[in-house]
Amino acid sequence: MGIFSKDIKSLDDLFVHQLRDIFYAERRIEKSLPKLISKANSGELSEALSSHLEETHEHVVRLQEVFRLLNVKAEEVDCPAIDGILKEADEIAGDVADTAVLDAAIIAAAQAVEHYEMARYGTLIAWARRLGRDDCANILQETLDEEKHADTTLTDIAQSSVNEDAAVA
Amino acid sequence: MGIFSKDIKSLDDLFVHQLRDIFYAERRIEKSLPKLISKANSGELSEALSSHLEETHEHVVRLQEVFRLLNVKAEEVDCPAIDGILKEADEIAGDVADTAVLDAAIIAAAQAVEHYEMARYGTLIAWARRLGRDDCANILQETLDEEKHADTTLTDIAQSSVNEDAAVA
Repeated sequence: MGIFSKDIKSLDDLFVHQLRDIFYAERRIEKSLPKLISKANSGELSEALSSHLEETHEHVVRLQEVFRLLNVKAEEVDCPAIDGILKEADEIAGDVADTAVLDAAIIAAAQAVEHYEMARYGTLIAWARRLGRDDCANILQETLDEEKHADTTLTDIAQSSVNEDAAVA
Repeated sequence: MGIFSKDIKSLDDLFVHQLRDIFYAERRIEKSLPKLISKANSGELSEALSSHLEETHEHVVRLQEVFRLLNVKAEEVDCPAIDGILKEADEIAGDVADTAVLDAAIIAAAQAVEHYEMARYGTLIAWARRLGRDDCANILQETLDEEKHADTTLTDIAQSSVNEDAAVA
């Protein structure tokens, strides 16, 4: 992002910029999820995160398809938001002694990631539809549905077992 | 957070840590919202953000009340996640030339903030209930309801006018 220039002049520009932001974010998540998975204690949690890692690979492919449809280069722009969210995930995971409490912290970190993505995809879909690009909106909607589903799964795991185990730790 | 020590040993510790994280975040949001408000072009958007700033002051007071109930010090811990989200909001707002497009960018930035808070408060409420602290959970729930409402209001504003104006910019 140019600090001294006004690079974004239209909603098209803003849409492409935000796509590049989430493209960067998805790729950082791809790199970070394996570390969270390796620290998870509950088999159910590890499985849910692994399954979401597979979905994340697909989200990257879908974004590449959206860039192709728009005929713009699939580039990344720095996304300080996801960097901060993942930094916090790393820090908290390093600071928790008990395995059940660590699982509760991992779920919280993963849900912060999911919510960031849900906000971004929600915005992108609205802009795509407004710009008459239902082709892009439909692809992005598939990803948003998976992010929401991942978030719900994490809530279910937290409520069914992890928080209970953590509370007696 | 101590990098070389395992500071968090129980769900109580994790709960207090996360409370301090969102306490820091709310205070940073309090400082950052006026800047976003001053850049907003749409009166409806400016009003919604101003009203949410008022609510944010109340969220800080509610967190102080939760700390009091838990009999722990109302301290902040660094929250790289909100720092990153707000940094991104600043950067994007500085890069957008057209006022209608800027409003669309401001809504996106504010919704990223709301979603971060929704994730954190959702987690905190679940942990409070698990720890038998319904008194704290009920207070935090009031804030979560307001965050969700603020997010919905921003979506409505985007869909009713801002995105339309931005698309023809």
